[in-house]
Amino acid sequence: MSNFHIKYGETVLIWDEEKKKSFLFVLKQGGELGTHKGKILHDDIAGKIEGSVVLSSTGARFRIFRPFVADKMMKVQRKTQIVYPKDAAWLVLSMDIKPGMRIIEMGTGSGAFTILLAQLVGPEGKIYTYDRREDFLENAKANIRKAGLEDRVVFGLLNAGEPFPVKDVDAVFLDLPEPWLAIVPAWDSLVPGKALAIIVPTAEQLKKSVEVLIDTGFAVMDVVEILERKILVRKKEGVRPFEKMIGFTGYLIYARKLIK
Amino acid sequence: MSNFHIKYGETVLIWDEEKKKSFLFVLKQGGELGTHKGKILHDDIAGKIEGSVVLSSTGARFRIFRPFVADKMMKVQRKTQIVYPKDAAWLVLSMDIKPGMRIIEMGTGSGAFTILLAQLVGPEGKIYTYDRREDFLENAKANIRKAGLEDRVVFGLLNAGEPFPVKDVDAVFLDLPEPWLAIVPAWDSLVPGKALAIIVPTAEQLKKSVEVLIDTGFAVMDVVEILERKILVRKKEGVRPFEKMIGFTGYLIYARKLIK
Amino acid sequence: MSNFHIKYGETVLIWDEEKKKSFLFVLKQGGELGTHKGKILHDDIAGKIEGSVVLSSTGARFRIFRPFVADKMMKVQRKTQIVYPKDAAWLVLSMDIKPGMRIIEMGTGSGAFTILLAQLVGPEGKIYTYDRREDFLENAKANIRKAGLEDRVVFGLLNAGEPFPVKDVDAVFLDLPEPWLAIVPAWDSLVPGKALAIIVPTAEQLKKSVEVLIDTGFAVMDVVEILERKILVRKKEGVRPFEKMIGFTGYLIYARKLIK
Amino acid sequence: MSNFHIKYGETVLIWDEEKKKSFLFVLKQGGELGTHKGKILHDDIAGKIEGSVVLSSTGARFRIFRPFVADKMMKVQRKTQIVYPKDAAWLVLSMDIKPGMRIIEMGTGSGAFTILLAQLVGPEGKIYTYDRREDFLENAKANIRKAGLEDRVVFGLLNAGEPFPVKDVDAVFLDLPEPWLAIVPAWDSLVPGKALAIIVPTAEQLKKSVEVLIDTGFAVMDVVEILERKILVRKKEGVRPFEKMIGFTGYLIYARKLIK
Repeated sequence: MSNFHIKYGETVLIWDEEKKKSFLFVLKQGGELGTHKGKILHDDIAGKIEGSVVLSSTGARFRIFRPFVADKMMKVQRKTQIVYPKDAAWLVLSMDIKPGMRIIEMGTGSGAFTILLAQLVGPEGKIYTYDRREDFLENAKANIRKAGLEDRVVFGLLNAGEPFPVKDVDAVFLDLPEPWLAIVPAWDSLVPGKALAIIVPTAEQLKKSVEVLIDTGFAVMDVVEILERKILVRKKEGVRPFEKMIGFTGYLIYARKLIK
Repeated sequence: MSNFHIKYGETVLIWDEEKKKSFLFVLKQGGELGTHKGKILHDDIAGKIEGSVVLSSTGARFRIFRPFVADKMMKVQRKTQIVYPKDAAWLVLSMDIKPGMRIIEMGTGSGAFTILLAQLVGPEGKIYTYDRREDFLENAKANIRKAGLEDRVVFGLLNAGEPFPVKDVDAVFLDLPEPWLAIVPAWDSLVPGKALAIIVPTAEQLKKSVEVLIDTGFAVMDVVEILERKILVRKKEGVRPFEKMIGFTGYLIYARKLIK
Repeated sequence: MSNFHIKYGETVLIWDEEKKKSFLFVLKQGGELGTHKGKILHDDIAGKIEGSVVLSSTGARFRIFRPFVADKMMKVQRKTQIVYPKDAAWLVLSMDIKPGMRIIEMGTGSGAFTILLAQLVGPEGKIYTYDRREDFLENAKANIRKAGLEDRVVFGLLNAGEPFPVKDVDAVFLDLPEPWLAIVPAWDSLVPGKALAIIVPTAEQLKKSVEVLIDTGFAVMDVVEILERKILVRKKEGVRPFEKMIGFTGYLIYARKLIK
Repeated sequence: MSNFHIKYGETVLIWDEEKKKSFLFVLKQGGELGTHKGKILHDDIAGKIEGSVVLSSTGARFRIFRPFVADKMMKVQRKTQIVYPKDAAWLVLSMDIKPGMRIIEMGTGSGAFTILLAQLVGPEGKIYTYDRREDFLENAKANIRKAGLEDRVVFGLLNAGEPFPVKDVDAVFLDLPEPWLAIVPAWDSLVPGKALAIIVPTAEQLKKSVEVLIDTGFAVMDVVEILERKILVRKKEGVRPFEKMIGFTGYLIYARKLIK
């Protein structure tokens, strides 16, 4: 059984019941959170149980939660586009992620997907994440530390096309402007039969990636895009999809390493 | 590092390079697999490495893989509709599944989603899965045994509305004709703040579920449907979505337990 | 051949080449149009040919067009939600609209769909459009007058459920909060075999409408929603769908009148 | 008022109430129609009113209709892919089609879209349709004759890139493997400001078309794809989208002619 009561030092998610808006922050003695509906005192949260109410200075009702992994992903300090939860979820399943796996990721970006991978491989797994930019790595490190997962992640500075320093990994994920440059290194580092997954924003990058995958010795198992359609459910007005939606975030590829 | 060579007794996935068609079966000494392109001898597979080629009796090239969890899900013996990987992936992320969790699922159905949950909670986690039909449970048990995950799964016969025999679980998932009947039992069994997820096929069931969730003391965090659009990538003809697509599989709800 | 040169008194569409933003206005001697990129003098447009350039006071390039029917629809003075072109187009085809037809529409709303219907039935057709609100009718009249189509449209004040004053029409279209109230009147006014089309925003309204259609003596031929996905095509960055999209505007029904 | 009673020589649509399946045929004295539910005698239909019932030899109930334009489009004798009604509808609106217009279409294909254009321009309009293949033109001619619209259509044999024999047309539509070849001829034949619309199946063809449009002197107003999602509405089981859907038919472009 988990320890129910929230303590100082923990990361907390505050959720506005009415507007469905949420805030993520670290709970500090004497701290204050400014919201669109007045201030919330950290001391009013400490010692409470998840799911309970905290009132803001204007009397607005907020709910207290510990963040889920998707909350942490969405709330990272962003220096880049992130892999959205809807795509991340599909990728995780396609790459057959499970506890204990060793996984290469490149580029690290803001570390949102790294957080999910690190959560899923558990304390015995390891994520090796690479980026060509020192500043992205530093930012991602801070994000992953905030998520409490830094002991499962190894960071490295690397350019696309350079060999990965680790071998016999169970999966590789590429999120790069020119992912095809890293496909041969990915093949070299993967256990036979295991998955390489890629996200790309355009049809041209998709085509080039698939061509290089086939030429390098991968079986291209699936190419998709994922659309998440949010549904509005209201007692009086009834059920219908929301008027606005995110129309596109990227094409997703999943391939498996072949041997001659 | 995994043991690369495939042995008798293992479950194997055979993939037709040209047609992208795959077959799942247990490797047996002297065994034979009939395909749309002739026979494949099990003895030609034993001892090979994942990703290598096996030829059928007609000379067709197949690739040898160990199945991924999504392959196992799609290839269960079906006595019911299954939760499709695209939906399962979203649910897993929304429920914040991680190693070591204890999860309630109802109904078990054919056990496809059970397999995914069991893989992700790892050897220290546990899935408590309930169904009102003995025959579904028996079939699901066989599917989960084939997936090698039976030691992480506890099965139980239960009608919707009856209390769940386990308490303080980290997540609950409902896939029932009348999921609202199981919402109060789910609240009773969940750790505060943790997730209840539901899949339903129609707008009416969606509405009723959301209403009962709110009345019972849940925060409804998200309601979506997930569309997976497969993309055709061909060297000569170019990139475009496939002409056929699965248009709908269900509405997905994710809520978190509140306390007074 | 049409008269190419644009004259004072005509409605003109000005299109910003760079931002793809457009403005609709009536050309007046001495007039000025304020844009996000400076002023445009009406006198710089008069006498020009469609497709030619006009420069704003800041030197920005705009293109001169006569508005298409979809421009007129999108630019009506709105007092209500309008039927969007993507839905309007589907409805027109489903209702088998053609020159010379006599059509009932209820409610008129802002008159956007009325404009399209009036254009397509031509000078020999007639649109009978009804609304329960005088102010909507007045606003719609002004919009349709601006579109130059007022001689093809007859306006009437009517509550849902009241009989339509015209009979033997070739099609009926309903855009109402409670369209089922007008289904019997629609049956009474339609030529046998002809189409009744309905747009509704929620699943509940859809269900009730379909049930009343069947009970009244209609064959429900098709129920759909239309998603328009805008695609970004850029020389350097390549092809991909836009990140934002309109996720939902309504469910569309098309039925045909049966006789006993 | 239309002539209600159906006569020999007319094209009739028979609709299976239960299966929603339909048949299109010309009514002949003594004729018989074989269906999945037994025979229907043409003589049982002649003299009836649209919307009335005819029984098959097995007692199954069918409804009698005159076909709508979308029925005619879907039921053409196909020698090629056709432009589907959902796309055709969008194109018609984007091209600002109205009674009296003169329109160029290339290629003719099976003539499905030609039928719609011919219906909408009315008896005073004209469709000039070109194809490089004599056999396609012959087949399309037969389809358009069956639709009763042959007097509004002029057919011509033409290769992509050759100048169109007519000038000052109000719209041009291209449905070709290499539409860019016909963009300069389209510019030459169009009235300034008027629309050129194109349908293409792949991202690569889309990109090339857009590039040539811009280079030739067109304003690219919109690039979209249209998804039609069919909704299942059942009294008992409730409302949800169909499980199967057509995932893709083509990218649609609409541009307007510019002058220097």
